[in-house]
Amino acid sequence: MRCYHICKLPGRVMGIRVLRFSLVVILVLLLVAGALTALLPTVKEDKMLMLRREIKSRGKSTLDSFTLIMQTYNRTDLLLKLLNHYQAVPNLHKVIVVWNNIGEKAPDELWNSLGPHPIPVIFKQQTANRMRNRLQGFPELETNAVLMVDDDTLISTPDLVFAFSVWQQFPDQIVGFVPRKHVPTSSGIYSYGSFEMQAPGSGNGDQYSMVLIGASFFNSKYLELFQRQPAAVHALIDDTQNCDDIAMNFIIAKHIGKTSGIFVKPVNMDNLEKETNSGYSGMWHRAEHALQRSYCINKLVNIYDSMPLKYSNIMISQFGFPYANYKRKM
Amino acid sequence: MRCYHICKLPGRVMGIRVLRFSLVVILVLLLVAGALTALLPTVKEDKMLMLRREIKSRGKSTLDSFTLIMQTYNRTDLLLKLLNHYQAVPNLHKVIVVWNNIGEKAPDELWNSLGPHPIPVIFKQQTANRMRNRLQGFPELETNAVLMVDDDTLISTPDLVFAFSVWQQFPDQIVGFVPRKHVPTSSGIYSYGSFEMQAPGSGNGDQYSMVLIGASFFNSKYLELFQRQPAAVHALIDDTQNCDDIAMNFIIAKHIGKTSGIFVKPVNMDNLEKETNSGYSGMWHRAEHALQRSYCINKLVNIYDSMPLKYSNIMISQFGFPYANYKRKM
Repeated sequence: MRCYHICKLPGRVMGIRVLRFSLVVILVLLLVAGALTALLPTVKEDKMLMLRREIKSRGKSTLDSFTLIMQTYNRTDLLLKLLNHYQAVPNLHKVIVVWNNIGEKAPDELWNSLGPHPIPVIFKQQTANRMRNRLQGFPELETNAVLMVDDDTLISTPDLVFAFSVWQQFPDQIVGFVPRKHVPTSSGIYSYGSFEMQAPGSGNGDQYSMVLIGASFFNSKYLELFQRQPAAVHALIDDTQNCDDIAMNFIIAKHIGKTSGIFVKPVNMDNLEKETNSGYSGMWHRAEHALQRSYCINKLVNIYDSMPLKYSNIMISQFGFPYANYKRKM
Repeated sequence: MRCYHICKLPGRVMGIRVLRFSLVVILVLLLVAGALTALLPTVKEDKMLMLRREIKSRGKSTLDSFTLIMQTYNRTDLLLKLLNHYQAVPNLHKVIVVWNNIGEKAPDELWNSLGPHPIPVIFKQQTANRMRNRLQGFPELETNAVLMVDDDTLISTPDLVFAFSVWQQFPDQIVGFVPRKHVPTSSGIYSYGSFEMQAPGSGNGDQYSMVLIGASFFNSKYLELFQRQPAAVHALIDDTQNCDDIAMNFIIAKHIGKTSGIFVKPVNMDNLEKETNSGYSGMWHRAEHALQRSYCINKLVNIYDSMPLKYSNIMISQFGFPYANYKRKM
C-alpha cells in the first residue's frame, strides 16, 4: 500500500527530496572544505624563498625577469647588432636604449619596420651626452633587476642566464663579469687597477673590490640610490665623463656594508668595438682614462670621507659548463 | 692686607681648595664621559658582520678558527702523514682523531714523543667501529666550524684557507670540495651519482645537490642536529656503514630550506689511499658501495617523507689562484 502511494507520486516529489539532499551534501562539503582551508598552516617565507616560488610560478613576471639598459653613443651599427642578440635572451622583460646621440633621431622607425620583436625596446632620447644618463630612474623600468651592458659588449646567453640566477641569490650585490680593484699605497693615495696590479694584503691569489656595471646585473632600486647621492658625485662623473661605475660600487658598498659585487667568470664574452664602422672607439681609449679612474677613487673617498670598498676573492663559475669544468687539469 | 692674610695661610688650605677643585673637575668629566657613552649609537649588527669583526679583532679565537675531525680505520700510516700536514694549516684550533681501531691503542705516546706540535691533537678511542662515530658531539670541540676530512685525503693549505674564508661567508652551509647529486627518474625512485650522471632539468651545465662531508667545512652545531635525528637515520648508517654524509646533506637542506652545500673547486687535492701499507683500501671500493648510496637516498626520503635536497650550479674558485685563472683560455 505504501509502495503504491509512493510509487504513484511522480518523479517530481522524489526529485525534490533528492535535490534537497544533494544541496545539503554539497553545502556540507563546501563548509568542510572551507574549514580545512582555514586550518592550513600559514607558511612563513623569507624574501628569498618567496622570490624562488614566484620564479617557479609566474613565468616572466617582474620578479624573475630583468630589464636591459644599454647606453649608446656613435655606434648604432654595433647597437643594432647587439639588440638582435639580446632581444632573445630568456627572462628579458624589456630593453631601454639610452640614446646619447644628441640631435640625431633614435631608430624607432627602423626598429619597428623590422618587427615583430620578442620584447619591447624603448629608445630614450637624451638632451645631453652624459655618461650618467644610464643611471636615471626610468619610469618604463618594471623589474627588480637591471642588466646593464655597454654598447660594444656581447655576452653569451648561457653567461647571462647563469649570472642572472646568481643575482637572484645575491640581489643586493652587483653580479657581473668585469672585476677591478683599488690599491692602497703607503702614501694613503689609492690607485685603480685590474689584475696585473699588486694584490693588497698577503696570501695567495688576487682580490677585487669593484664589479663594473657595464656588464652586470644589479638591483634596479640602486638607480634611485644613485640619484640621491651628493651633487659632488654627479659633478665628478659629468666632469670626467667617466667613473659612474666606480661611484656605483662606492655607493653600494657603503649601503650594504660588504663587498659591492660578485665576479662571475664569463665563458663567452666579447668586445666588438673593432667591428664598428663609425670610427668611434670608446671612452677607455682616451689617454687619460686610467689615470682618471684613480683620480675618481680618491675624489670619492674625499666626498664620502671614507673608503667603503671591500675586497673579495670569490670567483663564481657555472658547475659543469663548459663541460667537465670541475675537473682538475692533468 | 688681604694678600698678606691669604699668603700667610699655609699651602694646606690652598691645597685643600685645589684638591676640592680638582675632584670636582674630575667628577664633572666622568659624568660627561658617562653621558656621552650613553649617547653612543647602539650598533645593530647582523650575525655575519659580528662574525667578521670578531675575526678581525680576536686572532685565533674560536670564531675564526676551526677544528679538524678525522676519523681513522686501519690506515695509521696515512693518518700520521696527514696529521703532519694538517697540523700546520692556518686557523686550525685543534685536531680530534676519531680512532676506530677497536682494541688497538691510539698513538698518543708516539705523537707526544714527536712533539712539540703546533696545536693539540686528541685521540678519541671508540668502543665500536662505526661510520657515524665522527658525527658525535665532542666536548673538546670549541670552534664554530668543523673541518671534516677522510683519513686518506690530502687537501692543500691554500685550498683550505680559501674554503674556510668561504664558509665564514656561508656558515649555514657545507662548504666543500666534493659535489654529488641525486637524480630523479620517471618511476619516482632516486639514484645517486656524480658528474657523469644525467643532469636534472633543462639548460646548460650540470647540477649538484650534495657536498660530501669528508672534505668540507660545516657548522659544528650540525653535529648536535645529527644526534637529534630519528633513530631510523642512525640505524641506516649503522646498517650500511655508509651514507652518513648523504644523511647530513638531507638534514641540513631540510633545516635551512636551501641547498645544503657550496662546492669549492679544489686546486690541489689528492687521495693517498694507494700509498698505504696497510693493504686497506677504503669503504668506497666495496662492490655494493654506489648502489648503497642510491638505496640510502630512497630510504631517507622515506624516513623524512620528503626530498629536501636542492640543486645548485654555483662553483666557487679563488680569484687569481692559480695565477690568472680569471682569464679566458685562448
